[in-house]
Amino acid sequence: MIKTILLKNRPVGKPSISDFEFINEETSLISGEGEILIETVYVSVDPYLRGRMNDTKSYIPSFELNQPIQSGIIARVIESKNENFEVGDFVSGMLSWKTKQLSTGEGLLKVDNTKAPLSAYLGILGMTGLTAYLGLNQIGKPVLGETLVVSGAAGAVGSVVGQLGKILGLNVIGIAGTDEKIDLLKTKFGFDAGINYNTSTNIKEDIAKVAPNGVDIYFDNVGGSISDAVLFNINNFARIIICGAISVYNNTELPKSISVQPFLVKKSALMQGFIVFNYAEKYPEAIKHLSGWLAEEKLTYAETIVDGFENIPSAFIDLFDGKNTGKMVVKI
Amino acid sequence: MIKTILLKNRPVGKPSISDFEFINEETSLISGEGEILIETVYVSVDPYLRGRMNDTKSYIPSFELNQPIQSGIIARVIESKNENFEVGDFVSGMLSWKTKQLSTGEGLLKVDNTKAPLSAYLGILGMTGLTAYLGLNQIGKPVLGETLVVSGAAGAVGSVVGQLGKILGLNVIGIAGTDEKIDLLKTKFGFDAGINYNTSTNIKEDIAKVAPNGVDIYFDNVGGSISDAVLFNINNFARIIICGAISVYNNTELPKSISVQPFLVKKSALMQGFIVFNYAEKYPEAIKHLSGWLAEEKLTYAETIVDGFENIPSAFIDLFDGKNTGKMVVKI
Repeated sequence: MIKTILLKNRPVGKPSISDFEFINEETSLISGEGEILIETVYVSVDPYLRGRMNDTKSYIPSFELNQPIQSGIIARVIESKNENFEVGDFVSGMLSWKTKQLSTGEGLLKVDNTKAPLSAYLGILGMTGLTAYLGLNQIGKPVLGETLVVSGAAGAVGSVVGQLGKILGLNVIGIAGTDEKIDLLKTKFGFDAGINYNTSTNIKEDIAKVAPNGVDIYFDNVGGSISDAVLFNINNFARIIICGAISVYNNTELPKSISVQPFLVKKSALMQGFIVFNYAEKYPEAIKHLSGWLAEEKLTYAETIVDGFENIPSAFIDLFDGKNTGKMVVKI
Repeated sequence: MIKTILLKNRPVGKPSISDFEFINEETSLISGEGEILIETVYVSVDPYLRGRMNDTKSYIPSFELNQPIQSGIIARVIESKNENFEVGDFVSGMLSWKTKQLSTGEGLLKVDNTKAPLSAYLGILGMTGLTAYLGLNQIGKPVLGETLVVSGAAGAVGSVVGQLGKILGLNVIGIAGTDEKIDLLKTKFGFDAGINYNTSTNIKEDIAKVAPNGVDIYFDNVGGSISDAVLFNINNFARIIICGAISVYNNTELPKSISVQPFLVKKSALMQGFIVFNYAEKYPEAIKHLSGWLAEEKLTYAETIVDGFENIPSAFIDLFDGKNTGKMVVKI
């Protein structure tokens, strides 16, 4: 039996379970010449998928209604009529939320489970790590001794950004939503300071206290009022990497916030949207560094692993309540 | 007699005449060794001066209360004990709102009234032209055939930006507040299209109509809701130069607008604050081009010249009602 998850409705506001439809098909897939049959092992759920559920134009096409949702997936080859793949190989790629599927192999990368755990290829050695490394370096252009603030700091991307900041000699401050996460930032990921936005009575002043020389780089995963508070603390020539805006992905109306323009003028500061797909030519360099630091144990990562194909939609929805620490993946 | 204008109160909201104090002193200034005595000829009034009237930290120091206000001024040397200056020379520099003053000559540039009218050295060959040229090129990085939108298009900086856009082969759209200004943009300054934000019922759609291929560069002089409307039309990798935010300079509360971050992420777009003083090493290159194009009549400019020292404050205040076309200067 093959299980598939379709997009049933375009979510209004926060997605709900009823926006997804499960179908079970009693078919068996037979690979044609040049094809492989693969079985899903790990499914990545990511905040950016929310944007693909709308029918507005964006940097990647919208999902179609009543069609399978796609995300980063690790799968095992269980049948091969393609000379590039053998039964037992593990592959990574943008695949459908299905327990099994056919592929020509196009766009799939083989991944080596002896070098790193399979799920790492969806996280620190996948889009997550690439986003952290390339966003920080290509837009942030860090200089030794500068101060970096990361929002969504305990999330998949944020926790890597902070560690990279420490490797590069920055003063690193993380913003996250629970005391447990703040503790993790400081103990596991080596951040210099952490601010809990749920218990802080004045985020702006709390940032000023731990960034007495001001903020040079802000890696923004969240948007909204947290980002407004950071703006008050930026230095001249600050660089702000807009990597995500999870705080507003579910808004049904256009979110409002303080106007950033006067801050940018005053400080000659730069704010730039970052989409990792635009930096594909830099992937090999990034992966080389990330896997090197991972092997040297200069980098570590956290995962929230949810079990079971049927829990993919709820794991995705839980992202918007910050229920994950580090990368959220579903193990099939 | 020497007349001086002091900052009496820090304006709350829009400045009013009562925020300024006129004093008349029956003294005669005597230049010491190395000094020159100069007489004010033209005074530049500029939106950015509003920021210096607050006591918040910014990129240039605040004006002090009960001290003379300073801005760009053209003056004539009427007495010289400095070998670098002769009586009759004209100089340009940051000087006090006084009819006469002493100077060591430091920071003053000699200007040649045979090459261009004196007031041009406060405008197209001064800070205005430098801001237009360097902002457009350093941040906008224009590419032949791209579409440029300029807000505050009939203002001092905007009218030069649009003309430079045409010289560089761009499709240039200006946004301004009266039909007379829109007419001027198209007839005098060569803009391809103009939008009157006071009569448009949907600025966002009106931009889309004249920018069918989207907006690649937005030179933002105004901020606020006009800029929000432009954001809906930006292309991938758009560059947004935040040069000013005259629409919010007088706000007493922090202005709110739609969150720009989701737009920047979706489009991998860049938004950067621009302050001309940070690009001083590029001034000679910019002036060379600007004066060349001016001589070739590829560039023209508009001025609103107000007469009389006593009208400096009201000329300044009128900027915020858009009463100027092109550069606003006061002739003494």
